[in-house]
Order: sequence, then C-alpha cells, then structure tokens
Amino acid sequence: MGNSLGKLFTITSFGESHGRGVGTIIDGCPAGLAITEADIQRELDKRKPGGSIATTVRKEADKVEILAGIFNGKTTGAPICLVIWNQDVDFSEYERIRFLPRPGQADYTAFMKYGGFNDFRGGGRFSGRVTATLVMGGAIARKLLKLLKIEVMAHTIEIGGIRAKAKGLDEIRENRNKNPLRCADLKATEEMVKAIEAVKKEGDSLGGIIEGIALNVPAGLGEPIFDTVDGELARALLAIPAVKGVEFGAGFSAASKKGSENNDPFTLKNGRIVTTTNNAGGILGGISNGMPIIARVVIKPTPSIAKSQPTVNIRDMENASLTIKGRHDVCIVPRAVVVVEAMMTITLCDLAMRAGLIPRVIK
Amino acid sequence: MGNSLGKLFTITSFGESHGRGVGTIIDGCPAGLAITEADIQRELDKRKPGGSIATTVRKEADKVEILAGIFNGKTTGAPICLVIWNQDVDFSEYERIRFLPRPGQADYTAFMKYGGFNDFRGGGRFSGRVTATLVMGGAIARKLLKLLKIEVMAHTIEIGGIRAKAKGLDEIRENRNKNPLRCADLKATEEMVKAIEAVKKEGDSLGGIIEGIALNVPAGLGEPIFDTVDGELARALLAIPAVKGVEFGAGFSAASKKGSENNDPFTLKNGRIVTTTNNAGGILGGISNGMPIIARVVIKPTPSIAKSQPTVNIRDMENASLTIKGRHDVCIVPRAVVVVEAMMTITLCDLAMRAGLIPRVIK
Amino acid sequence: MGNSLGKLFTITSFGESHGRGVGTIIDGCPAGLAITEADIQRELDKRKPGGSIATTVRKEADKVEILAGIFNGKTTGAPICLVIWNQDVDFSEYERIRFLPRPGQADYTAFMKYGGFNDFRGGGRFSGRVTATLVMGGAIARKLLKLLKIEVMAHTIEIGGIRAKAKGLDEIRENRNKNPLRCADLKATEEMVKAIEAVKKEGDSLGGIIEGIALNVPAGLGEPIFDTVDGELARALLAIPAVKGVEFGAGFSAASKKGSENNDPFTLKNGRIVTTTNNAGGILGGISNGMPIIARVVIKPTPSIAKSQPTVNIRDMENASLTIKGRHDVCIVPRAVVVVEAMMTITLCDLAMRAGLIPRVIK
Amino acid sequence: MGNSLGKLFTITSFGESHGRGVGTIIDGCPAGLAITEADIQRELDKRKPGGSIATTVRKEADKVEILAGIFNGKTTGAPICLVIWNQDVDFSEYERIRFLPRPGQADYTAFMKYGGFNDFRGGGRFSGRVTATLVMGGAIARKLLKLLKIEVMAHTIEIGGIRAKAKGLDEIRENRNKNPLRCADLKATEEMVKAIEAVKKEGDSLGGIIEGIALNVPAGLGEPIFDTVDGELARALLAIPAVKGVEFGAGFSAASKKGSENNDPFTLKNGRIVTTTNNAGGILGGISNGMPIIARVVIKPTPSIAKSQPTVNIRDMENASLTIKGRHDVCIVPRAVVVVEAMMTITLCDLAMRAGLIPRVIK
Repeated sequence: MGNSLGKLFTITSFGESHGRGVGTIIDGCPAGLAITEADIQRELDKRKPGGSIATTVRKEADKVEILAGIFNGKTTGAPICLVIWNQDVDFSEYERIRFLPRPGQADYTAFMKYGGFNDFRGGGRFSGRVTATLVMGGAIARKLLKLLKIEVMAHTIEIGGIRAKAKGLDEIRENRNKNPLRCADLKATEEMVKAIEAVKKEGDSLGGIIEGIALNVPAGLGEPIFDTVDGELARALLAIPAVKGVEFGAGFSAASKKGSENNDPFTLKNGRIVTTTNNAGGILGGISNGMPIIARVVIKPTPSIAKSQPTVNIRDMENASLTIKGRHDVCIVPRAVVVVEAMMTITLCDLAMRAGLIPRVIK
Repeated sequence: MGNSLGKLFTITSFGESHGRGVGTIIDGCPAGLAITEADIQRELDKRKPGGSIATTVRKEADKVEILAGIFNGKTTGAPICLVIWNQDVDFSEYERIRFLPRPGQADYTAFMKYGGFNDFRGGGRFSGRVTATLVMGGAIARKLLKLLKIEVMAHTIEIGGIRAKAKGLDEIRENRNKNPLRCADLKATEEMVKAIEAVKKEGDSLGGIIEGIALNVPAGLGEPIFDTVDGELARALLAIPAVKGVEFGAGFSAASKKGSENNDPFTLKNGRIVTTTNNAGGILGGISNGMPIIARVVIKPTPSIAKSQPTVNIRDMENASLTIKGRHDVCIVPRAVVVVEAMMTITLCDLAMRAGLIPRVIK
Repeated sequence: MGNSLGKLFTITSFGESHGRGVGTIIDGCPAGLAITEADIQRELDKRKPGGSIATTVRKEADKVEILAGIFNGKTTGAPICLVIWNQDVDFSEYERIRFLPRPGQADYTAFMKYGGFNDFRGGGRFSGRVTATLVMGGAIARKLLKLLKIEVMAHTIEIGGIRAKAKGLDEIRENRNKNPLRCADLKATEEMVKAIEAVKKEGDSLGGIIEGIALNVPAGLGEPIFDTVDGELARALLAIPAVKGVEFGAGFSAASKKGSENNDPFTLKNGRIVTTTNNAGGILGGISNGMPIIARVVIKPTPSIAKSQPTVNIRDMENASLTIKGRHDVCIVPRAVVVVEAMMTITLCDLAMRAGLIPRVIK
Repeated sequence: MGNSLGKLFTITSFGESHGRGVGTIIDGCPAGLAITEADIQRELDKRKPGGSIATTVRKEADKVEILAGIFNGKTTGAPICLVIWNQDVDFSEYERIRFLPRPGQADYTAFMKYGGFNDFRGGGRFSGRVTATLVMGGAIARKLLKLLKIEVMAHTIEIGGIRAKAKGLDEIRENRNKNPLRCADLKATEEMVKAIEAVKKEGDSLGGIIEGIALNVPAGLGEPIFDTVDGELARALLAIPAVKGVEFGAGFSAASKKGSENNDPFTLKNGRIVTTTNNAGGILGGISNGMPIIARVVIKPTPSIAKSQPTVNIRDMENASLTIKGRHDVCIVPRAVVVVEAMMTITLCDLAMRAGLIPRVIK
C-alpha cells in the first residue's frame, strides 16, 4: 500500500537500495509522447553524487532501462516501466547494525510496521536511492508539462542556517546549475561550502531549504477541497525522505503579517489578470491563479552521521550506542533539488490531466 | 472531483455557504459505534464564533442533523450523512461584488476554474463555513480514535507575530479551553487580544500558527512512500482555507540544525522504546514512531478586510477597487483550531484503519 | 466503504429505505450544465411502481430535492447533492421478522457483516429503494452524454422464461415506453402479463432479462486492462439488487460458436469503419469500437414472496418458517429497466471523462 | 490508466507480448509471507500451452524473476515486483498485418484509442500473454487466502457447445488436473477433444465456459453497494481477454425461475447457518453468505483463426481480406482456467483485506 501516486498520471515506485534494482511504473501517460532513455538519464544524472563537496556516497552508474510502454521511441498508452539495476551493493555494514536502529532514520519504524521483515540493507525501501524512481517519473511528466509550456525548477535557498539572497528567475535558472549546491546566490554558496566542510570534519551533517517554482501554470488547476494544488504538492513533496515541512508563497511568514500586507492585489497586465505580489504562491482556494507556484521544503540534516549516537538494541531490548561507518552525504540538499523538481512536476502533470489540459494522444 | 478524502474512512463534503446547507458523508465507519447528534454538536460548537473577540461573523445555530447511517443511536455500517441547514443567508453584498474578486480569496480562481458558474455567494464552496463539514467528520473519527486511546488536540501558538511560550501537555490540555483564542499561554493570550483589537480598529486582520498534537499513536501507522503520516496529514490540513504551510516536529527549524542536534536518540523507558527528543514530530520515514505526532500549520491573515483594496473587474476587464462590507473574522486562528483537530483526527483514523487497528464492527 | 462509484464522474449513494431519506452526491460533474429538478424527476418517475401490473409496492411521491451544487439552474463544479425524503414508512412488519432473514434477501449477510447493527427496516440500505439514488445520478450523467450524442436505452427482453423477439432500434425506442413491462415486443408482453398474473395468484414471483443499448459511443472509451468498458459496466450493473449476471454482445451464446461465426468482420460504411455483425457488443479488448454497446443483465425473481419459506431465527439459532406480509413487486424487471439505463449512463459518462471527451466547463 | 486493480491488495500489470517482458507489481501484501519463485512458477506453469491438444502457441519458458519486495524468502511489506522476460519474439508476421485489424481482436480499438502508437506486435498489451501477469499476482494472493483456508478452483464446464455434467467438489478437485482441458467430466472431455480436433482442421476455433468456485469464504466479504463481491469479481474476470459474460449462482437461468424456486432457504447445519440450495452463488446483497461462491464466465472462441476474414486496411481506408498465419490456440479455454482462478483469488484477497481478515504482518 502507498506506493502509487496520482489519479490520472500515476506513478508506482518499487525496489530497494540493495536488492535487484529500483523502478517506476507510469500509468496514464498519453500515447505518442517521444521519450528516449537519454531523456530520463539526463534527469537521473542530476541526482548523482558527482564531484560535489556535499556528497560522497556510493558510485552507481544509475543507468535507466526501459522495460515496457515505449515503442519506436514513443509512448504507447500502456504502462511505462523504467528500471535501474543495482550494482554497488556491499551490505556487510548493515548486517552489523541490523538491530541498532539509526536515530533519525526509518529503521525503527520500518521494523515495527513490518514486523522485522523489511529489507534493512541500506535502509531498503526507505533509502534515498528510492528517490531515483521519483526522478524517473518526473522525467516523463516534465515532457508532458513542456507541451503546456510549464517550467518547473527548484534551487537551494538555505543550507546550515545560511540563507541565499532572493534572486530573479533568470538568475535562478542560470546560476543554480553553475555550482554543486544548486544555489542561485553564488556568494552564499561559498559560505555554505565552508559550513559543509566544517561539519564534515566533525562527522556531522547539515540540512537546508529548497524552493520549487512552477512557471506558466494556467489558472484553474487543482480540485478543491481536498485535491488542491497545495495539498497534492505537499503530499508528494513529503514523500521525499528528510522533508519535514512544506510552505507555499509567504508560508509561515504570513503568520506575522496583516491581511492588507499579505493579500495580493489583482491588476491587469497586458490584458491578463495578475497579482502585484505573490504571497499566495500562485494558489488561492487550492486552485492555481496563473502566478508562479512557489513551494518551499525543509530538508532535515542527514541523519547518518559519523558521531556515536545512543540507540536501543531492538532484538535484546537494551540501550546501546551506535557508530555508523561508511559513506554518507554530509548534506543531501543539493541532490534533493532534482527530486523536489520531480515531485512538483509529477503532481502538476496529474492535476493538468485532471483539468483536461493534456490530450490522451500526443500528435 | 476532489471532495472526498480517505481510503477506508472516507469523508465527502458538500454544500455551499449560502445554499440549502452544508453536509458530510462518512463512508467506511465501522458498525456499532455509538453516535448521537450531541457528540457532533459538541465539536461544531467549538467552531462557533461565540463571544470571541476575534470573531464577529454571522450567527448560525449550526445544528447538525443526522440523515442516514445511524440507527438506534449506533452506526450501521452504511454511509453516514450529516447536514447543517443554512439559515442566515443575506447575499445582497455578494451580488454587488460578484465581478470584483477579493484579493486573497478564491473568488478569482473559482471563477476561472468553473467558468463563472460557481456559486459566488459568500464564497460558496470556498467559504470557511464549509469547514463545518470537516468538523462533523472529525467528530465521528474522534470516537473511533478514542477506542485506540488516541487523543488529538490543537492549540494556538502564534497570532500576529506574538508567539506563545512552549507549555507542557497538561497545561495545553487545560488552558486552551480557558480562553477564546485557544492558546495555552495565558500571558501571550493577553497580548494577542490587544493585537487583535488594534488591527480591528484599522479594518485589518491577523494570522497565526496552530499546533496539533496526537498522543498515544502506536508505532506503525502510515503507508510509505506516498501515503505517509506526514503526507496525508499535510494534504488534509491544506484543505483548510487559509493554511499556507505545514511542518512536523522541528519543521523548518531543522534547516539550521546539525544532524547530531536534530536526530532523536532512542532509549528504553519502562520497557518501551522512546526517543529522548522529538524533532521528528513522531514520524520517521513516513511512519509513526510512537512519540507524539506534532504538526504545525500557518494560517494566513483573514483576506476579507475592511480596507479598500485594488482588484480587477473580471466582467469588464478593468482595474477597480474594492471595499468589502459586512461581518468578518479579524482572526480566524481560534476557530480554525477545531478544524485542525478534525483534519488530524480524520487522517489518523483512516491510517489506523489501513493499518488494521480498528475492527469493522464495534462491540 | 463501497458507496462511491466512478473515477472522474463519481456518485456516492446514501440513505436507507425507512430512514430520513435516500440521496446521491455527484462529484466531478462539469460546471455550467443546465439541470432542473424536473430533469431528475422525469427519470425518477420511470422507476415508480405506477399502475403496472407487475408492481404494487408502497406509494412514494419520490420527489427529488437539490441540496447543493446547482446554482441559477446550472451546475457549479461543486458536488451536487440530491435527496428524496422518505414518507410512507411503516416498519412494524420488519420488527416482526427482524431475526428471520428472508431467503434471497440481504438480511442475513447484512446481519453478519454489520454485527446486527444494520438498519433492517425494509431492507435498510439493501432496499430496492436505494436504486433511486442511482437513477438520480443517471439523470445527471444522461445530460452529459447528450452532449456527445450518446443515447442509452434499456428494455425488457425476457420475463418468466418468455423471450421477446429481437426488434430494431426504432421499434425498441418507441415500443418500450408503450407498455408497463417496458418490452419492445408487444406480443410477448401480453404473454408476460399473463405469466405475472398467474404467479401473483400463487404468491410467487418472476425474474427476467433486461438489455441495455448505448448508441453513438465513440471508439476509444475504456481503460484496459482493468478499467475496461465491460468490466466497469458489469461492476456498475451488479450494484443493482437482484442482478445475477451480465453479458455483452453474443455473451454466453459465444460458448457454442466457432471463431469464424463469432468474429465481427470489419468493413467500410460511409467512410467509417464498422463491423457487419456485433457479437462483440461494441467492445473489443475492453475498448469501445464505435458499434452499439450491448449489455444484458439477468434479474432474479423477486425474493419477497407471499409463500411460506424455511429460514433460521438468527437470534435463537433455531430453524423457523417465514411468511412475508405486505406489498411486494411480483416482478421488478420493468422497474429495473430505468436503473440499468442509469448505471450504463453513469459508467459511460465516467469513461468518457477519462477519455477526455467532456470539457470541465460546459458553455 | 486502468492497469491497477484492488484497493488494499493492489496489482499493477505492465509489459507487452513482444517487448522486454511482462510483469506485475503487488502492493499491499502483508509482510512476513513466505514466497519463493517456485510458488509463482507453479501457477505460471498451469498457464503453459504444454502438450494440450487445444493449444499450439509459442514456446516460452515463462520463468518468473523476483525483482523486489521479497527478502530472505519472505515478503517485506514493500511492493513486490515479478517479471517474466520475453524470449521467443518473432514479429515479422505482425508487421505484415499491422494495418489490417484482426476481427475479434483489440487491434482496431487499440489503434483508435492510442492513435496508432500502441505496440501492435503480437497484440502488444492486449495479448493473452499479459494474463501471465495476472497469474503471478494470483499466486501471491493464493498464499494469503490459504491463511484463511479459502480455496479457489476453476474448471472447464463447456467447450464448443459440449456441456460437462455437474460434478461434486471432490471430483472437480481431482479430475480437472487429470486432463489437458481441465474439465471434471472425463466423458465430456473426450467429446470436447474431438470437437477441437475437428475445428482445428477447418482452421477455425472454439470457445467455452469456465466455472470458478471459492470455498470456505466467510460470510461478510464485500462492500455494498458498489464494491460488492459479485461486482468486483465481474470486473476482475472481464479483464481476461475473450471473457464476454459473467454470472453467479443460478445466473441467467434465474430469469425463468419463480422466486420460490430460486430463493435459497436457510437452515442450521452443525450449528452453522447454511442454505439448502445455492442459487445465489454464495452472494446476497453483494456480500458473501458463507456458501461456495460460484462464478461462471464465457470465453469467446479464439478470434485468431486460419480462415480468411474480411477487414479494412486502416491506413489506406480500403476494404481488405486477412489471413492470419502462425501458431494460435484453437481453444484457449483450458489455459484460461488458471487465469479465472487467479482473478477470483486476487479479488477475494483484496475483499478479505478490506474486511479486516488478513493481518498486516504474517507471523
């Protein structure tokens, strides 16, 4: 249960960190959409640890393979199955800590929920590696949103308490790909790099905030009162491990504003109704209003740290301490940027289909 | 579309602010649960404007009527239909401003989505009045959670930038019902009252933050990776008009913490595994860990203010200005507290049913 | 659980035979559709016992009331709530037989499923009266299908073993409304009437077969492999109490045909691809092929008969015998015709929406 | 859309006849269930053409491979992914007839629905080969139903108009596996074999009827009014290509019975309430009554025949004739028996989970 998302454009995720592989089924994609493995690979590569200072995890080729649903380079209307085979799977370390749940990870809750039958190796189903299945789904959705000229982009706006300066859309679009932290404020990036290096030495980790922006979303997406743009986005974004909160537009800062400050006045611009501010983050009453959709998510600091931590041996029911060995991202924020993009893309694609904006056959 | 929530315990909301009434269908409630109209009325009454300083809206009896699904005082296993008939429905004002979408409200987006066919009177389907349908669903869910000894309570923690001091559970439980703002910090409450009085004179409004707490939730609720406790809660909470963000546990503050600070160490307490801190807000990997579930939502300042605001006449496509007359809540935070409670209750009830914790017949 | 049907055009049924009333929520109906209570009443009236020889049940006005979702005579995009208030509710008889489950009825299974908490009066939720909620949903769906020029009509083809001769579409369209049995073969109708009169004297009952036909359904409806036209229709038709089987096109007779006899050859007709026979009943691979969709359902003989029947007293767990008093339809086939039509209409409407054929706003 | 079935026990089917392979995702299977590839292979092998007289299709090893969700021989609670790689894929013939839709097949409707982008090779997504994905799902569900001691078995009761004599449960259980036609009446089997041999010489094909029986189903399964046992079974069974009708218990024969003949009287047997007949097929009001569930499906004669057939060239829009070469089952009824079993098993498993009868962790 719980491994499918979406009503008309549906993704189903499967696979574990250290099993045969991880994969995605996309059901509901219109027929006739041109898709190559390269299209999907391009997105997957953004998720790679690469040479980033923040990340040092295992080296996986993460090569996508299309198993079904695409024929002669185009979608067929049948479910699309995409898979990445696992290769670099050393799980001796996980055998050692099997009964020592890592604080901040899902080890304990998975053990409780699945009666200890869960695949614990590398976090199994709860591994960050599973986000690759989301990115693959996002790569397909991105192609569909392109038909509507909707652009979704995310960028790092905070790491370890260091906040990036607000930047214009063009600067964000350009700068975020210029640096390994995917931050548009290159000055702040330098400070973030220093902060990451410092905690790395301590064997500790950092979190941060990612902002996702969707441009050219037409007014009218979202199905109130429950299947709202914000509700659906929040649910999808919280599927990303480590996300602990989501806000839209002014978000939590709205709590200290007055109505007259927070309301976005309507005005005409080139014959189109726009708002002069965007505290609503493009969403009113759960429906898109045509302004940029702005979502922000907080990523908690990576729970796997080198420092010793108190835990409980769940087999022997004894207090214990745990030191996690091996390779871990000091800060996953930069790698999560592409996942935030994927989840926003998938969600908006599904909502666009529900609103009848995407044809069933692409010609 | 979009008016149903839940997989096994499903609520469907219907009705408009100025139509015949508003109502809820609850499908999936086990048979044999004792329910009276008084049980539901008690929750509805908490949503009432009452004598609160913050609220001055229309006086509705808001009397619930059971239309179906309850027989001899007990649920039958058939869908439960609860309705509140509308009485106090003066909508002359809404005719006047029909083509002048109120900034911060759903007038414009509803107009765009439904081609102008939406019932615009009093915000129609987007009225805060529709939250009564959520509260009714919550009243049923609350009875079911009681069987599991799960307690859900919400309280105001911030209004107009004034933050309440953190209080213990007992103090929250007791104090929040002692004052009209439903805040456990009685000192802060006084300041909040002053802030509300001040903006009221200005014809302006205030927002705030509500914290919801669920106690005694067993470990193991939530269906990763998409139907997580946090994802489902967020989606449900964002159905409340004016909520612009949701966070769990440490929430956005986790962005500036180190992993060693944010991780909650496990320890044994009376033979049970607990965490010594609760930055996770009771949720790890989307699954409850047995600690209190802590969710916080931001409520934007009431968009309906007395001040003149710029808008666009959507019939004539001309810039215009709008002054809203009539009765409006200066700050809906206190009334939203019960709605936050309802949405958490409904969501946890559905997740408990998915986890197989609630029998199909209550004996 | 189980009281909602449809993915984009969703109906939720509620209410019991002897409670406050029965009703329907329709969620997902496009905005701007003109709907009056008269439109719905017209369909409801077809379900009335009327002066038919076959039926003698209680006299209910069955007046529909619109509670939500329609404003100024048009749908708003919000959920539509339609209700019929119960009036003629004498349930003394049901108290008497409360623990004597009627053979062929749902008394026993409802008792087992809901632990005896079900509203047993008049069959409660399992009453034929609940089909009025389906007919109301069908009345809305019919208006939407009209936009696509799709026509759905059902007619009686067999009662008590007497089979009507096959008739042309025009004859069916015309004749079925000319006689209380809704049969297009007026000769056979006479025999059916005699058969009904005969069993009525015996205190017994009869069943029959209804054929539903959908014309002008475009090729391409249906979502294989599970949400097929035939699968969705069958599920919807089996929601009608007393239906015990569904077949499409040649149906069960295909078992004794050869492939060369059963295959429908394709040919061109006025530049359009058609089949020269229609053994497929308009459905190939779960997808409509543009030919008339032909579904046939068997209605079992009314289980409520005047004859004494063996049963078990479920309170005392003793064998017992039961004689049901009161008014009962000798043959519900004629009244079920409109319900078959409703279920086909609702299902095709939902499938047409999934296929993207119905706009979200009707202009 | 449409490739998932089930609410709590969900299967998602993917893959095409001549692509990389076909597969199934099972989401919602409880953790701790022992499953080996052999368990699944055993069911798959029943679907094999084998040495049967009726079938001569391509020789595929049809070896299942577990890709996810099973760890150390037990389910983990994560989605299970099972795949069969395609091997014997000669599709030159299909290129030849690409624009000549085969009568009785989904070629034409798939072309229309997916704008010609569907994978047409071997019927692609509409191939009988896809039923292997259903059988794999059924193999898992069967293990779960075994926990409840529910037994599902299907057998051939008619081929080419030759009807098997009714047999007792023991005889069915034993005999159906003794002969390639999976018929319990060994005498009738001989006649069926002769009929098949005869039409084979003509280059023609035969259909038939399969009966599925579920034993030990507890009373109380099914969620009226839409998610009924019969409705859900029918929808699932109609996912099997070539099924054109479904009936329960007395089925279509009920149309010519009187109520007094068709009603199943209740009586006590060993302290348990049973019915003395089973015209209801174990289902009353959409809910199981504890008696054997009896479903019958009609399988149309295999549409792929060697005889020349009229069709239309859909590229050139010209009448044409088609002779299909290659290997085809003369009668797929025997192979469909295991698929009927699978679909009944999957559906009852899902309904048992909804009724709360299967724990979330198997210990």
